[in-house]
Amino acid sequence: MEKRVVTIGILGVGNVGTGVARVFLDQAALLTERTGIEFRIKSALDVDWERERTVDLSGIQCTTDVDDILSDPEIDIVVETIGGEDPAFDYVMRALEKGKHVVTANKALVASRGRELFRKARESNVDLLFEASVGGGIPIVKGLREGLVANRILNIYGIVNGTSNYILTRMHQDGLEFGEALKEAQERGFAEADPTLDVSGGDAAHKLAILASIASSTVVDLDTIYTEGITNVSKLDVDFAKSFGYTVKLLAICKMGEGKMDLRVHPTLVPNSHLLASVSYELNAVFVEGDFVGKTMFYGPGAGERPTASAVASDIVDLAKDMELRSGERLSTLTIDPEARPEVLPVSQVENRFYLRLYTYDAPGILARISGILGNHSISISSVVQLERHVYDNYVPLVILTHRAREADMQKALAEITSLDVTLPDYLRLRLF
Amino acid sequence: MEKRVVTIGILGVGNVGTGVARVFLDQAALLTERTGIEFRIKSALDVDWERERTVDLSGIQCTTDVDDILSDPEIDIVVETIGGEDPAFDYVMRALEKGKHVVTANKALVASRGRELFRKARESNVDLLFEASVGGGIPIVKGLREGLVANRILNIYGIVNGTSNYILTRMHQDGLEFGEALKEAQERGFAEADPTLDVSGGDAAHKLAILASIASSTVVDLDTIYTEGITNVSKLDVDFAKSFGYTVKLLAICKMGEGKMDLRVHPTLVPNSHLLASVSYELNAVFVEGDFVGKTMFYGPGAGERPTASAVASDIVDLAKDMELRSGERLSTLTIDPEARPEVLPVSQVENRFYLRLYTYDAPGILARISGILGNHSISISSVVQLERHVYDNYVPLVILTHRAREADMQKALAEITSLDVTLPDYLRLRLF
Repeated sequence: MEKRVVTIGILGVGNVGTGVARVFLDQAALLTERTGIEFRIKSALDVDWERERTVDLSGIQCTTDVDDILSDPEIDIVVETIGGEDPAFDYVMRALEKGKHVVTANKALVASRGRELFRKARESNVDLLFEASVGGGIPIVKGLREGLVANRILNIYGIVNGTSNYILTRMHQDGLEFGEALKEAQERGFAEADPTLDVSGGDAAHKLAILASIASSTVVDLDTIYTEGITNVSKLDVDFAKSFGYTVKLLAICKMGEGKMDLRVHPTLVPNSHLLASVSYELNAVFVEGDFVGKTMFYGPGAGERPTASAVASDIVDLAKDMELRSGERLSTLTIDPEARPEVLPVSQVENRFYLRLYTYDAPGILARISGILGNHSISISSVVQLERHVYDNYVPLVILTHRAREADMQKALAEITSLDVTLPDYLRLRLF
Repeated sequence: MEKRVVTIGILGVGNVGTGVARVFLDQAALLTERTGIEFRIKSALDVDWERERTVDLSGIQCTTDVDDILSDPEIDIVVETIGGEDPAFDYVMRALEKGKHVVTANKALVASRGRELFRKARESNVDLLFEASVGGGIPIVKGLREGLVANRILNIYGIVNGTSNYILTRMHQDGLEFGEALKEAQERGFAEADPTLDVSGGDAAHKLAILASIASSTVVDLDTIYTEGITNVSKLDVDFAKSFGYTVKLLAICKMGEGKMDLRVHPTLVPNSHLLASVSYELNAVFVEGDFVGKTMFYGPGAGERPTASAVASDIVDLAKDMELRSGERLSTLTIDPEARPEVLPVSQVENRFYLRLYTYDAPGILARISGILGNHSISISSVVQLERHVYDNYVPLVILTHRAREADMQKALAEITSLDVTLPDYLRLRLF
C-alpha cells in the first residue's frame, strides 16, 4: 500500500497549538510506524509570530492570514487551537464549508455553538472531532462514543475542571482559604489570570454539555445546565465536610432519568470512600455508567500542552485512517443530531441531600425554629453540628445535613431561615453526592 | 445511504456468548440509530442446546457444527466466546483463513497464541479484535491503541484480576483469611470452582501480555512475565501492610525502560494514598502512562456477562463501520508485528523495595544477624516491626521493609536468612509499589 500523506493546518499556535506541532514533530516516526500514514503540518496561523516558541516551526509555513490555510486545497485537516468563541467559530465554519475535517480542543466553542457546527459538518459531509475538549488527554470522548457504543448511558459524573479541583484539594488537605489556594494555583500555572470561567463552574458546564450531548445524541444547550461555582466555599465548609467524612469536589453531573435529563454543575460533598474523593489537585476523573457496562471511570490530566496534544493527535489519526480507507466521513460524530434538544428536568424538581451552613445567634430555641421551618417544607435533618466558635460577635456556625429533599422546598425553607432575625445573610447550601 | 446489514456468528453461548446475544437483541434500535447499521446474529454454536438460557435465541440458528458458521458466506464477523485454548484456537484460525473478521473475549487465547493469530489475520487481510479480553467492559484496549496512539507508552500497571482483588479486599477490610475470602468469592460468583488461574496470577499475566503487546507493537510471550499469585499472602501480612499504610494488591506491571521491558505480576504493597489502593472488590483499574499524556487510568468492572458483552459489541461496531466505509481492513490491530519479540529484563536485574515477613526465634541478637545478612547483600532496611505474638511456639513474626534492592541480591539474602537455625521456612517476600 502506498504511503499516504495527510496534511494539516493549525489555527492558533499558543500553548495547545505548540503541543500539537510538537507531538507531530517528536512522534513522526512512531505515528507512521503505527498507522502507515505520514502526517505533515503544512501551515500554521497566529496573530503573533514574534513571540518565542518552544517548538521548532521551521518547515511550517507561518501565516497571519487564515485564508492561507482555509483555501489551501492540499490541507485535509484543520486543527483549531485558538480557544474561545471568536474568531474560532467563524474559522471553523469556513473550514467545514470548504470540505475540510476539523479537530478542535475548544470546549467553549463546541459547547456554545455545537448545533451550528454539527449541522455544517453534516451538510459538508466532513467530520468535526473534539476529544481534547473534555478531560485533556483522557480518551473519554472516544471511550463514551465508541467504547461504550452499545450502552444506553444512565449517568455521567465527575471532576472536569482541574483549577477548581486544585483549589479544593489545597483547601481540604492543607487548610488554605479559597483566596490563598486560588493565588497559589495562579502562581503554579493551574489557574488563569482571570479565573472566572473555572471557579464559576462555567468551564465544567461546557464539558458537561459536550459529554451529555454525546450520551444523548442531542445538542445540550449550555443554559439548560444548572451551574454553581466554588467561590462561596470557605475553609470552614471544607472542614465541616471533612469532619462528616466528606470531601468537597466540584462535580459535573448528568443523570438521564426517565425522559428528562438532570444536568448540574456544583460543589458537592463526596463521601471519602468514593474514588472521586481521592482525585486530587489538577487531575480530572469522570464516571460513565451504562446499562450494559455498569460503572466505568476515566482518569488523568485534564489540561496541559502535552496531554491536550495527545488527544488532538488521536482525533487526527482517526480521521487519517478513515481517509486511508477512502471514505469521506466518520460515522461516529454524526450521531449527534444537530436539530435535537433533550428534555431537561428543572433543577427545582431535583431531589438531593443538602449541607447547610448558617450563622445563628447564640441563644436558646434557635435550632428549634430552624428545624421547624425545614420540617414545614418536608425536609428532615440527618445531622446537626453547632460549634462554640464565635465567628461574627455572638453568632456561631450551625451546620445541618438533611435527608433527600426537593430543591424547590429547600429554596423556600432557606428564604425563610435566612430572613429570620437570628441568622446572618452569610450562609452556604451544598449538595451531597 | 442504504442501510447495511452486518451478519454475526457466535461461537460458544455460555455466560459471555449469552451477553453478546442479549446486547444485540436489547440494543438493536439504539445501535442502528447510532451507526446506521443493522446487526444480525444469524447463527450460534454450542455443544449443549438443552441447557436453559436467559436470552431469547429464537431467530438465531443454533448449531453444534462449527462449519455451519465458518463456511457461511453471509457471516461477516465471527465472535469467539468459548474461552480457553482448545477448540477456540482452531476455530478462530479457520475463521480468519476464510476471510472473516474475528472478535474474541478470550484472554488465554490471545495471550498464548497471539503470534499465530495475528499472522493469520495479516495474511487473510482481516482483523482480530479483543477489547473484552482485558478489563471486561472497560475500553482500555481502544484507549491504549487509539486514544493514546500518539504516545510512546512508558508504563502500564494495575489491577486486572477481579477474583484476586475481591479476595484481597475482604482480607484487608474485613480481616478474613485467604481461604475464607476465596470460599466467599466462589459462593458469590467472583471466583470459579477451580480458582487456580486467578489466584496464581496466571489470568493477570494473560492480560498483561496483551496490554504490553499493544504498547510495544510486538508479541509478548507469556513465559517472559514473572508471575506470582496471592495464595501465600496471609491475613497477618495484609494487617502488617495496613499498619505501614499500605494495601496489598495483585498488580500487573509493565515498565518499558530503555530497550528492555520489565514485566511482572505479583502481590504488591500499594500506598493507601495511591488511587489503586482504593480499587476494591471485583473491580479493575489500569494506569497507562504515555510520554505526552502523562498518567491516565481506566477503571470499571473487569468481568461479567454484561460488561464483557459491551466490549465485544464495541469491537463489532468498529468492524462494521470499517466495512461500511468499504474497507477490508482495520489498520489498528495490525500494528502488532507478529514476528517481533520484545527484549525482556530478567527479573533478577529488577530493583524493588521489599516487604519481608519472617518467623524468628524469640531470643536476643537475631535481628542483628538478619540485618547483617541483608547488609552483606547491599540491602538496607527502612522499617522493622517485631510483634510479641507467638504464632509458632517461641517464634514471633518479624517484618522488614527495605529500601530499593536488586531482586538477585534479595534472593541470595533470603536463601541465607531462611537457612538460619533461628528462622522458620514459613516466610513471605512481597514488593512495594
